Amino acid sequence: MIIGKTIDEMELGDFATMSKTVSETDVYMYAGITGDFNPAHIDAEYAKQTFFKARIAHGMLTAGFISALLGTKLPGPGTIYVGQELKFLAPVMIGDTITAKVEVVELNKEKNRVTFRTTCENQEQKIVLDGKAFMMPPKKK
Amino acid sequence: MIIGKTIDEMELGDFATMSKTVSETDVYMYAGITGDFNPAHIDAEYAKQTFFKARIAHGMLTAGFISALLGTKLPGPGTIYVGQELKFLAPVMIGDTITAKVEVVELNKEKNRVTFRTTCENQEQKIVLDGKAFMMPPKKK
Amino acid sequence: MIIGKTIDEMELGDFATMSKTVSETDVYMYAGITGDFNPAHIDAEYAKQTFFKARIAHGMLTAGFISALLGTKLPGPGTIYVGQELKFLAPVMIGDTITAKVEVVELNKEKNRVTFRTTCENQEQKIVLDGKAFMMPPKKK
Amino acid sequence: MIIGKTIDEMELGDFATMSKTVSETDVYMYAGITGDFNPAHIDAEYAKQTFFKARIAHGMLTAGFISALLGTKLPGPGTIYVGQELKFLAPVMIGDTITAKVEVVELNKEKNRVTFRTTCENQEQKIVLDGKAFMMPPKKK
Repeated sequence: MIIGKTIDEMELGDFATMSKTVSETDVYMYAGITGDFNPAHIDAEYAKQTFFKARIAHGMLTAGFISALLGTKLPGPGTIYVGQELKFLAPVMIGDTITAKVEVVELNKEKNRVTFRTTCENQEQKIVLDGKAFMMPPKKK
Repeated sequence: MIIGKTIDEMELGDFATMSKTVSETDVYMYAGITGDFNPAHIDAEYAKQTFFKARIAHGMLTAGFISALLGTKLPGPGTIYVGQELKFLAPVMIGDTITAKVEVVELNKEKNRVTFRTTCENQEQKIVLDGKAFMMPPKKK
Repeated sequence: MIIGKTIDEMELGDFATMSKTVSETDVYMYAGITGDFNPAHIDAEYAKQTFFKARIAHGMLTAGFISALLGTKLPGPGTIYVGQELKFLAPVMIGDTITAKVEVVELNKEKNRVTFRTTCENQEQKIVLDGKAFMMPPKKK
Repeated sequence: MIIGKTIDEMELGDFATMSKTVSETDVYMYAGITGDFNPAHIDAEYAKQTFFKARIAHGMLTAGFISALLGTKLPGPGTIYVGQELKFLAPVMIGDTITAKVEVVELNKEKNRVTFRTTCENQEQKIVLDGKAFMMPPKKK
C-alpha cells in the first residue's frame, strides 16, 4: 500500500515543489472538463482587448498544482484534504512556467492536522497564487 | 465586448447552477493536466483498499465547476477572481452527478466586491464542497 | 428540470453567439474522436503543399459550435435537433477565432418548428460556414 | 503527395464505410471541444428524466464520421467539402456502435461535383442520421 508521510514524519519548514509550463493544450482541456468557456481563456480576439492582452489560464487550473503536490508528495497518498484558501494575485499567461510549493507552517499532533502555506510562482518569481491548505495526513504505514 | 453582470445588476440571493456527471475521462484528463497521480484517483486496485472502496475525483476538479459558474454565468466575463475558500466535505466518486451553485451573500458597492457562497452537491443532495468566493465584477457595459 | 426556450418565448430575429479560438489541440482531439486523419488537418508538411499552406480545422468541428449554441443557449435544453444544412465557404485555420451565431428566421407554431440561420465567422468577419438548422423547441416549462 | 480519388475514378454506387462504438469519453471530449454542455449529453441524472432515459451523443459528433469517410476514404485527401445536409432521425446512446456510409449518387464531370448519400446506422441497423454531401474531388494525381 503506497502511503504518504505521517504527522510524525513532518517538521515545520518541510516543503515540496513542482513546476510545469502551462500550455494552450492545458487551458483548452481544462475548459473542456469544467465547461469554463470564459472568453478570457479561450477567445484570443476578446483577450486582446482585455487588460492582460492575451488569453490567461484558469486560476483554478493553477490551484490544481497545489493539490497535486499535497496528494502525491507532501504529505502524499492517504492524506485527507480538509480545506484550502486561495488568493489569486496575478494572472498566469499561456506559456508561463509555474512553480508550485507547499510548506509545513503548523502541526497539530493531537488532532492530526497540518497546515501548509501554498504558493505558485511564475518564471519571474512573481507569486501568482497564495494561500493555505488544511490536511489530515495518513496515520500509519 | 461580452461582459458579465456589474455589481448594480446583482442582488443578495441571486444564484446560478450547473450540473455534470463526473466521468473517468474527466478524472484522467485532469490528472494529466495537473500531474496529480495520487493513486486514490487513478489506481483502481489501490482504491479498493481505501475507505471509499473506489477511485474518487480530485477535489480541485469539482472546485472547477464553481469557477466555471463565476466566470461564465454569475457574474460572468470581465470578473476578477480575488479569492476562494474551500471545504472538502465528502468525496466525489466517478459517476457522481455534481450540481455546483454560486449565490450572492454579500455586496460591497464602494469597493466593488461581491461574496458568493459556493457549494457543490451530489445526486443525493449531499454537499461535497462548501465555501466562499470573493469577486470583483466588471464595472460597466 | 433545466429547460430551454419554448416557441412562444422566441421571436424572429432572436439570436445567440459564442466565440472560440480554434487551437491545434481542438483539431487533434477532434481527429482522434472521429478518426478524420485527413492530412489537411494533421500533417503540417503535407499542408504546406496545399492551397491553404497550413493545416485547417475540420469543417464539421466548426459546425459543432452551431450545435452547441442550439443545445445550450437558443432554444437550449430539451430541443430536438431535426436537421441541418451546411455550406462550407472558407477554411478555418488553426488559430482562427470563430464566432458562431444562430438566429430565428422562421417560426411555425402549429408544428412547433423553428428554423435558424446558422453562421460562423472568423476574426476578419468572413463567413466560413453558412446554413440553416431545423429545430423542435421544448414544449413547456 | 497523398491524394484521394478523382471524379474519373468514381462510379455511381461506389461506397465506403467505417464503424466506431461511441464511448462516454468521445462524448465528454466532444463536449469539451465545442462547449456543448447540454445536460442531455453530460448530466446522467437529468438524462434519466428525459424521453431517452440516458445520456445521448451529440448529433454533430456522429456527423463527424461522415466527414471522416469523405476526407480520408472516398473521395479522400484533396477533396473540397462544399456542403452537407443532415437529418437527425434517432438518438445515439453512449455505447452504441455506429456504422457510417457514404455512397456516390450523382456525378457531374463538367463541374467536378459528386453527391453522396450519407447515412449512419446503429448496431440494430436503424438509420440514426441521413443526408447528402456535396463534394469537389481532387483533380489529378
